[in-house]
Amino acid sequence: MAAATLARRLGRSGVLPLCCRPPAWDRARGPPPSPLQPPGLPLAPCRSFSNNKIQVELDESSGVAMMKFKSPPVNSLSLEFLTEFSISLEKLENDRACRGVIITSALPKIFSSGLDITEMCGKSVEHYSEFWRAVQELWLRLYGSNLVTVAAVNGSSPAGGCLVALSCDYRIMTDNPKFSIGLNEAQLGIVAPFWFKDTFVNVVGHRIAECSLQLGSLHPAPEAHRLGLVDELVSEEKLMEKAAAVMAQWLALPDHARQLTKTMMRKAVLDRLVAHREEDIKNFITFISKESIQKSLRMYMEMLKKKKS
Amino acid sequence: MAAATLARRLGRSGVLPLCCRPPAWDRARGPPPSPLQPPGLPLAPCRSFSNNKIQVELDESSGVAMMKFKSPPVNSLSLEFLTEFSISLEKLENDRACRGVIITSALPKIFSSGLDITEMCGKSVEHYSEFWRAVQELWLRLYGSNLVTVAAVNGSSPAGGCLVALSCDYRIMTDNPKFSIGLNEAQLGIVAPFWFKDTFVNVVGHRIAECSLQLGSLHPAPEAHRLGLVDELVSEEKLMEKAAAVMAQWLALPDHARQLTKTMMRKAVLDRLVAHREEDIKNFITFISKESIQKSLRMYMEMLKKKKS
Amino acid sequence: MAAATLARRLGRSGVLPLCCRPPAWDRARGPPPSPLQPPGLPLAPCRSFSNNKIQVELDESSGVAMMKFKSPPVNSLSLEFLTEFSISLEKLENDRACRGVIITSALPKIFSSGLDITEMCGKSVEHYSEFWRAVQELWLRLYGSNLVTVAAVNGSSPAGGCLVALSCDYRIMTDNPKFSIGLNEAQLGIVAPFWFKDTFVNVVGHRIAECSLQLGSLHPAPEAHRLGLVDELVSEEKLMEKAAAVMAQWLALPDHARQLTKTMMRKAVLDRLVAHREEDIKNFITFISKESIQKSLRMYMEMLKKKKS
Repeated sequence: MAAATLARRLGRSGVLPLCCRPPAWDRARGPPPSPLQPPGLPLAPCRSFSNNKIQVELDESSGVAMMKFKSPPVNSLSLEFLTEFSISLEKLENDRACRGVIITSALPKIFSSGLDITEMCGKSVEHYSEFWRAVQELWLRLYGSNLVTVAAVNGSSPAGGCLVALSCDYRIMTDNPKFSIGLNEAQLGIVAPFWFKDTFVNVVGHRIAECSLQLGSLHPAPEAHRLGLVDELVSEEKLMEKAAAVMAQWLALPDHARQLTKTMMRKAVLDRLVAHREEDIKNFITFISKESIQKSLRMYMEMLKKKKS
Repeated sequence: MAAATLARRLGRSGVLPLCCRPPAWDRARGPPPSPLQPPGLPLAPCRSFSNNKIQVELDESSGVAMMKFKSPPVNSLSLEFLTEFSISLEKLENDRACRGVIITSALPKIFSSGLDITEMCGKSVEHYSEFWRAVQELWLRLYGSNLVTVAAVNGSSPAGGCLVALSCDYRIMTDNPKFSIGLNEAQLGIVAPFWFKDTFVNVVGHRIAECSLQLGSLHPAPEAHRLGLVDELVSEEKLMEKAAAVMAQWLALPDHARQLTKTMMRKAVLDRLVAHREEDIKNFITFISKESIQKSLRMYMEMLKKKKS
Repeated sequence: MAAATLARRLGRSGVLPLCCRPPAWDRARGPPPSPLQPPGLPLAPCRSFSNNKIQVELDESSGVAMMKFKSPPVNSLSLEFLTEFSISLEKLENDRACRGVIITSALPKIFSSGLDITEMCGKSVEHYSEFWRAVQELWLRLYGSNLVTVAAVNGSSPAGGCLVALSCDYRIMTDNPKFSIGLNEAQLGIVAPFWFKDTFVNVVGHRIAECSLQLGSLHPAPEAHRLGLVDELVSEEKLMEKAAAVMAQWLALPDHARQLTKTMMRKAVLDRLVAHREEDIKNFITFISKESIQKSLRMYMEMLKKKKS
């Protein structure tokens, strides 16, 4: 698709030789982008920080950060996880050495299981409000990020986990058909909020989103690729190499032009949540506080517990 | 596509065992959904009602109604047909035993030929107004229905017939290339109203809609499938079986979550007509009252008559 | 796709014989459409006009004009070119004998290289304003044209050249993979304006547009076809024949119905620029006057000069 080797194409056309390296005023930010160092070979200067849930390593020579979710058992998006995720993104955005981030999981088989149901069950209205604001905050930051964001989806990614992937600029997924991805909220008796839906529609179009959301579908990787939910499938061994190659391709563009273009594409959907943020929190609280919904979520958690034991 | 067997997928993922049966508060509406009884085997309790144009049978054990158009020769959407169609849908919506409806034709070779041209030719302004309001009413009810709506398109389906199919949740069509479907209004010298267009764009996207509407294309079944205008093609013998299977898949979701999701997807387009309903009726009357349009419709009807004899 | 032979389809369906010739009140405009005369056989009456940049020949018997860009070396959209382009379109719109226009290049290997960079480099604010208004004017006229517009893309078509193609009703491109097409503004460190983006999204959808615009992709013809950026690929020899056949198909529809449908599809996007026209000019001037942008454009022009020598 659009992610073929740009330089080759430009060379091939023969008619209009185009500058595919960032112009001078952009390179002033730091050294020109270079192929990513394979992990474990710290030849280049490298900054890293970590917290309870997420580990981040920034390769200063390439400008690319690797962000790994490491919150067993399934990288649930708890309040703490969301907060650390937002803070990590903010740090990278403010670091002039960072131009892009690859988001992946440090756990086997799971990218992220989505919003932590325990945060939505039997808690106070104040807690629901704080939690939902953190979900909004993370999305606003990720979907509107100035960085190039590549999701390396190395496991299943339902509901909120799918949203994280959908909010990136590009999605590469392990080609394992046992791994699935989708906004399956309807399966749990709950409803994806309008900005999950808007993000989904922007990726797969209205018809596929309508069908998939109503059925609460979890699409196995090959189907997700066919539907356009992920951009590429690769084998597990090639995932990081591919993510680095895609990142290098996106970093070949001048940052400011790419960022202005991204804003132009995503602003309408971002603005819609910003304009209705408090209303959206109220709606969430009203919905989640219903006894029928609470009962359903409790049943669901019971079922998860039994499966585990 | 999104209509693969959900349960199998969920089982296959291995990571997040998800409840694919409606939770308790939903099952309270009636018995859990079961595979549809093949027609002619009335083992389950069954309510049916019928009028001049449409026959409806509700299988209470599954919650699924079968609605059959039976208005020879071509199931034209006359004022009477539209009124009976709306009333039938309203009855089913209000029947707590009903959760979904399969819409098909009792006539061979034709699903519905669309709006009845005789209602638009040589009539009074009052008649045009009443007729157009009935067209709007039917669409608002069908596109916004709380029921799962599956179109089993067992024949050609031009213009308004295509709109009926487009307004359902899922479209299955007989794989006979002699059957075609499309919004071919432009071929008759008339123009599909904006809400026909909006419905079409929501299904096939802007580009295909633009091209198809300008050319007034009638797409043979295989092409319609390729364009996404219908979701699946099956042989004529398998059509009802497939429709029942798809219905069962959609009914596996909790009604309220599915309904809220559907509303979220369709509300913008529904609201647009509601906000401009009277204006839309006036536009229709002005357009259809033009002598040039009347002349064109008369010529078209003459041609149809000659073909018949 | 939607451009299959309509008459054949309608004949094939057997159910609803539909008038595929323009009705009487349309044919009153002139003789009924006939297959295009091959170029070089001036059997039919033929009007032509020409200016420095563009040559136009109108075949009165078919109602089809052939518009050829002839501004070496690469059909840059200079202020003069844009003005002549707009005037030529206006003439054809006002000529009752003209119903459609095929747009192509008289130069080998290039359709149009897009906006002339010399018009954006080292000029006065007044010049930038005049130039940008001319770009807007051309797009408003072409995207909103009442004529059937077919782009016969017989060479590469980056940036503004791609916009010209995107603004037509149908795009046929030579199947030469050396020819590429795309809105590659980001490669030059500049950003496509919102109405370029809107036009692109209407053709390829949000996701492909987002990815392609951010990467400033130039898609080789086969990829452009796969993405839906062009509707058909044909060999160079067959290009004009195919364009004539497609045109005949579109002219088989009554003009007024086709025009009203086209307006319905494109009005929202056209209105958006009309409503923000002065603001868009101001934005362009502010952006293009930045020293960093001027420097980047100068570097780019230097590079083009070196390549040539």
